[in-house]
Amino acid sequence: MADLDKVIHELVAANRILANEGVVDAYGHVSMRHPHDPSLFLLSCSRSPELVVPEDIMTFRFDGTTADGRKDNPYLERFIHCGAYEANPDVMAVVHSHALAVLPFSISSVPLVPVIHTGTHAGEHIPVWDSQDKFGDTSMLVQNVEQGRDLALTLGKNRVALMRGHGFTAVGRSLGEVLKISIYLPQNAQVYMDALRLGGTIKCVTPGEMAIRDEGGPGGRELGRALDYWAHRAGCSHYLHYGKK
Amino acid sequence: MADLDKVIHELVAANRILANEGVVDAYGHVSMRHPHDPSLFLLSCSRSPELVVPEDIMTFRFDGTTADGRKDNPYLERFIHCGAYEANPDVMAVVHSHALAVLPFSISSVPLVPVIHTGTHAGEHIPVWDSQDKFGDTSMLVQNVEQGRDLALTLGKNRVALMRGHGFTAVGRSLGEVLKISIYLPQNAQVYMDALRLGGTIKCVTPGEMAIRDEGGPGGRELGRALDYWAHRAGCSHYLHYGKK
Amino acid sequence: MADLDKVIHELVAANRILANEGVVDAYGHVSMRHPHDPSLFLLSCSRSPELVVPEDIMTFRFDGTTADGRKDNPYLERFIHCGAYEANPDVMAVVHSHALAVLPFSISSVPLVPVIHTGTHAGEHIPVWDSQDKFGDTSMLVQNVEQGRDLALTLGKNRVALMRGHGFTAVGRSLGEVLKISIYLPQNAQVYMDALRLGGTIKCVTPGEMAIRDEGGPGGRELGRALDYWAHRAGCSHYLHYGKK
Amino acid sequence: MADLDKVIHELVAANRILANEGVVDAYGHVSMRHPHDPSLFLLSCSRSPELVVPEDIMTFRFDGTTADGRKDNPYLERFIHCGAYEANPDVMAVVHSHALAVLPFSISSVPLVPVIHTGTHAGEHIPVWDSQDKFGDTSMLVQNVEQGRDLALTLGKNRVALMRGHGFTAVGRSLGEVLKISIYLPQNAQVYMDALRLGGTIKCVTPGEMAIRDEGGPGGRELGRALDYWAHRAGCSHYLHYGKK
Repeated sequence: MADLDKVIHELVAANRILANEGVVDAYGHVSMRHPHDPSLFLLSCSRSPELVVPEDIMTFRFDGTTADGRKDNPYLERFIHCGAYEANPDVMAVVHSHALAVLPFSISSVPLVPVIHTGTHAGEHIPVWDSQDKFGDTSMLVQNVEQGRDLALTLGKNRVALMRGHGFTAVGRSLGEVLKISIYLPQNAQVYMDALRLGGTIKCVTPGEMAIRDEGGPGGRELGRALDYWAHRAGCSHYLHYGKK
Repeated sequence: MADLDKVIHELVAANRILANEGVVDAYGHVSMRHPHDPSLFLLSCSRSPELVVPEDIMTFRFDGTTADGRKDNPYLERFIHCGAYEANPDVMAVVHSHALAVLPFSISSVPLVPVIHTGTHAGEHIPVWDSQDKFGDTSMLVQNVEQGRDLALTLGKNRVALMRGHGFTAVGRSLGEVLKISIYLPQNAQVYMDALRLGGTIKCVTPGEMAIRDEGGPGGRELGRALDYWAHRAGCSHYLHYGKK
Repeated sequence: MADLDKVIHELVAANRILANEGVVDAYGHVSMRHPHDPSLFLLSCSRSPELVVPEDIMTFRFDGTTADGRKDNPYLERFIHCGAYEANPDVMAVVHSHALAVLPFSISSVPLVPVIHTGTHAGEHIPVWDSQDKFGDTSMLVQNVEQGRDLALTLGKNRVALMRGHGFTAVGRSLGEVLKISIYLPQNAQVYMDALRLGGTIKCVTPGEMAIRDEGGPGGRELGRALDYWAHRAGCSHYLHYGKK
Repeated sequence: MADLDKVIHELVAANRILANEGVVDAYGHVSMRHPHDPSLFLLSCSRSPELVVPEDIMTFRFDGTTADGRKDNPYLERFIHCGAYEANPDVMAVVHSHALAVLPFSISSVPLVPVIHTGTHAGEHIPVWDSQDKFGDTSMLVQNVEQGRDLALTLGKNRVALMRGHGFTAVGRSLGEVLKISIYLPQNAQVYMDALRLGGTIKCVTPGEMAIRDEGGPGGRELGRALDYWAHRAGCSHYLHYGKK
């Protein structure tokens, strides 16, 4: 179980990194697919990410039930994660966030597109999921399997789906990739908003550039440097590098 | 008096949480209805919220006089609280704030509306109280019973009233609810401003969604997690959980 | 000299408060008229405000020369202060700042006006001084007596003058007043910018409200609370309350 | 080698200052020309600037190879520095940054111009380098000698070149100058964006003012004060003043 223990500590680091970088606040969460069983995933009990410790990490099935017999209070919106892992075996980690700079694009008819190179990891197309389309008036939360599956359907093979009036869900082929996507998506949104307000014409990242950058692998070629930096800033390097000599 | 002592410590936590989250600065305040006597309320002496300690909490009547014989200097604007508690027995806690992101909507003809799900706790309609309408030129402060009552009249059964060129007053059915309203109102305002500037069409939260979210109770279903987080960040968990084992 | 020592410590507190509140950075400064001789003023040697200590405070004449025989390097722009004290005996304290939110109004044809009640201390009219008008191309700094006097002429009986492409100069009838003006001017500017972008009509503070608020005295009725808060946040309460038991 | 040791420590201070002032984050870097051999330059191994220590500083040739035999992982984009030093013997220090406030101008047809006096160190003309123009679709990074030389060609005798969808490169006649340029360029961009949104006419810094300010020397007349302040804030004064008594 040494491997599982290491993964759990990395997931705790991811929680704290996202909180420290302002991607999540009291709400929002991050999960990883279980390293031993692809039909399960690891996610904290209902705790704000900045406060998550290894003991908070629970194991869930794709129907949102716990697979470890624990009775802790789970996140209401764990079904976001259920749907994403179930729909796509390439998804190894999932972030759900309410980052402010992204939210305007979730309620506006103006689509969010990659305009800076660090924003390219979010992928070329960023769809918007509106819970109204299929479910009508709801609590706006993803609170059951059907809603999680519908969100996953909108997400498709993309890496990010905005959620109308709510936030975004990002998926990664690794924990590091989904962190990089989630940290730079708000920055890309801010730059695009500011550029739109300048009133001139705008040059976005081209499809060809997107494709070449993607060849750098999950999160790009210099991801390790960023992970070390984010963990240091969040005071959680010991979680990120747990078990390393 | 153990119960009162616990409530006073929670109110101190609320002061520090609002300061730490940037909702109040040197000015602004938060109060609670007295747990033993609904005709009284608890409010700090004239102290910036970040610095409030349990010994600062005074007891006031709805006419703004002190009910505990203390001679400390009170807030000039305690009449905001007087009016809100007097007008509506459901109001259990009140926040007054000058949060910057909300202020533009207090002076503009463009109304503030809920556009994100965390902003729904503020309620569907957010009226603007203009002291000019009834009182003409004043110091712009709510400094007597009549002004407090007039503000309460504008507030009506809503949860938030903006105050022209001044700030906002929020009321809650619990201390936790009014904290959540006050912390997310500026975020909702920022997202709406940014979305308006994008120039496309905007989809707001629907009345049906508002109603369903309100069924989650004061502050919504996962409020406890947020309170723990805010208190931890503000270094005041010991006040929030005073007396708990 | 106990009184002078107390004033010097208050001035150090003011330096640190302005730095901590983001009004000044590496550049910018704050001065006080000398408590024993109105033809002199107290100002730090060339040091960033966050780092100023009591030993840095020098005494200057209105011609910019030192009156205490010290050889420390003075601020190049001490002539801002010279001009303000010379022109108006009511001026007891002066701040010079490059605060970002104010700068757009220093280069735009759109005038800055008070729109929030905390912004009223800056006064009804906020003129813009453009060094080009009288001196043509310069270093944009106020580096001699003539430039300081010309700035003071533009300032007139107002409390704030913007300086084109450079910043602002604020004067107060007390140190507390000039701090309050300087801390809330950027906030008033930010709110006004945001309100203008909303696209609706805007209601500014009325002349009658300005007049009534001014009756509250320098910095308004609850200034002491704010000074305690700012000093606490900046970790300089011991400077602000030097010599008090 | 005492001189080299001192320069290396100053370069470490520069790394930490840029991180602390928000100019660089996980990515971005700063280099200096080698004090003993103008055909070499000093640059950290692949490390986020906030974490750089003296042992990280490597020596590179203009072809991007190491001149000190070290095997550490270099920055992919060290060719930005190669090109800048090779093209212009006056260049003594180089910064590469992704500062958010500058990025909108890198993708918009609206050019960035100096509008505040602290922004004048960036020079009158700020060209935009688009990797597409010569190299078509790429990873958007400057990963070889040809790309570094092409960027240097666009930079020419200017002090800053924006890089489309990527960031900026700044060069200085001293380390202090390039720090001042890099710290104030985002502020100048923010002020200009805000002024443009006000909708009035804007007065920029004039060519005559630019010329006079430039006479103040690299970084202007009061640069030392700013360096002390930035180093103090970043907690790296001991690196900046290494070896001084």
